[in-house]
Amino acid sequence: MAETSPRSPAKVVDIHTHMYPPSYVRILESRSEIPLVRKFASSPDPRLILLEAEVPSLSGADDASAKPPGRPLTKHYSSLSQKMHFMDTHNINISVISLANPWLDFLDPSEAEGFAKSVNQEFSDMCAQHPGRLFFFGTLPLTASLSTIEGSIAQLRALRYCRGVILGTSGLGKGLDDPALLPILQALADAGLTVFLHPHYGLPNEVWGPRAPGEYGHVLPLALGFPMETTIAVARMYLAGVFDAVPGLRMVLAHSGGTLPFLAGRIESCVVHDGHLVREGRVAPGRRTVWDVLRTQIYLDAVVYSDVGLRAAVEASGGADRLMFGTDHPFFPPLGGDEDGEWESVGLNSEAVNKALGDGSEAAAGVMGGNAVRVLRLYGE
Amino acid sequence: MAETSPRSPAKVVDIHTHMYPPSYVRILESRSEIPLVRKFASSPDPRLILLEAEVPSLSGADDASAKPPGRPLTKHYSSLSQKMHFMDTHNINISVISLANPWLDFLDPSEAEGFAKSVNQEFSDMCAQHPGRLFFFGTLPLTASLSTIEGSIAQLRALRYCRGVILGTSGLGKGLDDPALLPILQALADAGLTVFLHPHYGLPNEVWGPRAPGEYGHVLPLALGFPMETTIAVARMYLAGVFDAVPGLRMVLAHSGGTLPFLAGRIESCVVHDGHLVREGRVAPGRRTVWDVLRTQIYLDAVVYSDVGLRAAVEASGGADRLMFGTDHPFFPPLGGDEDGEWESVGLNSEAVNKALGDGSEAAAGVMGGNAVRVLRLYGE
Repeated sequence: MAETSPRSPAKVVDIHTHMYPPSYVRILESRSEIPLVRKFASSPDPRLILLEAEVPSLSGADDASAKPPGRPLTKHYSSLSQKMHFMDTHNINISVISLANPWLDFLDPSEAEGFAKSVNQEFSDMCAQHPGRLFFFGTLPLTASLSTIEGSIAQLRALRYCRGVILGTSGLGKGLDDPALLPILQALADAGLTVFLHPHYGLPNEVWGPRAPGEYGHVLPLALGFPMETTIAVARMYLAGVFDAVPGLRMVLAHSGGTLPFLAGRIESCVVHDGHLVREGRVAPGRRTVWDVLRTQIYLDAVVYSDVGLRAAVEASGGADRLMFGTDHPFFPPLGGDEDGEWESVGLNSEAVNKALGDGSEAAAGVMGGNAVRVLRLYGE
Repeated sequence: MAETSPRSPAKVVDIHTHMYPPSYVRILESRSEIPLVRKFASSPDPRLILLEAEVPSLSGADDASAKPPGRPLTKHYSSLSQKMHFMDTHNINISVISLANPWLDFLDPSEAEGFAKSVNQEFSDMCAQHPGRLFFFGTLPLTASLSTIEGSIAQLRALRYCRGVILGTSGLGKGLDDPALLPILQALADAGLTVFLHPHYGLPNEVWGPRAPGEYGHVLPLALGFPMETTIAVARMYLAGVFDAVPGLRMVLAHSGGTLPFLAGRIESCVVHDGHLVREGRVAPGRRTVWDVLRTQIYLDAVVYSDVGLRAAVEASGGADRLMFGTDHPFFPPLGGDEDGEWESVGLNSEAVNKALGDGSEAAAGVMGGNAVRVLRLYGE
């Protein structure tokens, strides 16, 4: 297997790439509420249903003529050889794989610890099959007790290929600005584990209006709900002072920060013009701005599908060395095309990097892989 | 008063600047539900309460020791001489004034027509007092019948200084993607009236979490809810085909499009990867992309408070000639400072223009005024 070192700058690294290992698929198959996996007469593949917005109602969906809800659960979701094939097809040297949403958020506390352990061990075992080519972000049993979660962090710290954890925005149930989450974030910082923040819950369905999803498919919750959820979660953390309270915290934000690079200026202006915050003395000299946090504790993936967005993400980050390429595989497969060939969704993101930073430039190479190798210490055997 | 012509390129124009004329303040004073204006023992000025998020409950707020809800209704909201003073202080040659949110959205249909007429006439009279320095975006009685609304458009078309209408995102009650709104948008296009799209409703309060607004003031709904609302509204219009159905429609989006410049790439990717839209044949050659609409039917104001955001807005628009400076006066006054002096919120936006496009550049001069003169035909007497 390829030797990876900080002196191999031409590596391509995918830091946003998901897998549902077999044990996770079995959990979803056993469920009767969303999220779930179920077979329908109208679909050859089992269907993966993650979001309420994907299906108005499950009743009637067994009719063979009905459009099946959700999306097909293809081999891309759980097959390691398919992941390696995808990497080879797209010249990706290293992938940092992670469980996809909604992780273990829906589990009873009694089940969460055991499933987290087995899922994390499965990820570790997959990485060990391809040393130097695979690393992973682990999963935390957030519905369990604090001590159980801390035990899970200790497990992850000991796993050779683990480089962080993937987190949704719910935290312990009250969001990432919940003071009760601080010990967990501190433990992650102490363990040198990076938090990959990823959306799942989107926005309440009513904001999409009466014509969604019937006429608009999944476009609105995916294109807008996801990045808006991420932005709100990070803004809440910022306002709660989480980044100051845990200065060692390092986060990678999915989808280039949602909308944070574009809205950072407006957030700052609203902070300095907010009577409540000013009266409370929270707009004082020495205060760390959103920009400061973006440039010290936050990294962004480069999954934004346009050079316009990518350039804003780079500028908001104070330079291209805080961005890291990703594919979002196995989501957004080519429709009607060959899923074993090249994916347009991948090409959109790599083209955006090259267009924004210059094809073949050092900055582009950094975003495509060098930054991830350095930031996440992706050194091989 | 100053003669204004397309050959006076150094004009500074403010296209995002609000007023509540006296008749509108009287409507708000007569109400007992939000939106409203009310006096409180704890505040010298009457208080303007526009958003549910600004006040958990009105009960108890009469206590003289309580923090009064909402914001002070200063002379900046309704005094024309104060508007002129603000313009002079900031070297603004021309302002295109508009009623602020929530416009007439809350009125009974029976009242809407009369109030729209009087508010629009008041705006027209104010402009006539300062010919060449003031133009306005009118207000539509959207809770009334279609024929009443069309009558209002005819009124506005005949008013000398009217250049468009300010619209919220609710339309006739079901959003701007409502097919029933198409005749109104067509009538506006036929009348050569530009739509200034402005948010008001934000997002459902639950997305801000249990610590808002108590600890975070108004930051989240204003900094994030407003631009997200605008983005959702325009994306819904795009998916509904409104821009194709009314090719003459011209819109100015508040706050540089909310988050549209940053998310346009993701919207496009989600469209071409959406099974439903593909099956319906809506992803076909010749389809107009979000980028196409941004570069032909949409203008953006330059109220984004950072050069990072402004540059993205310019790039998404295909050039700097589709952006127009604004202040958002009388919102975001300096806190603890002199409201009759220079406002930091104004400086943040003009500095962003100069930083993004080059101090003294032709592009910056265009955004600061030339574009608005050309696009909105702001020619004087």
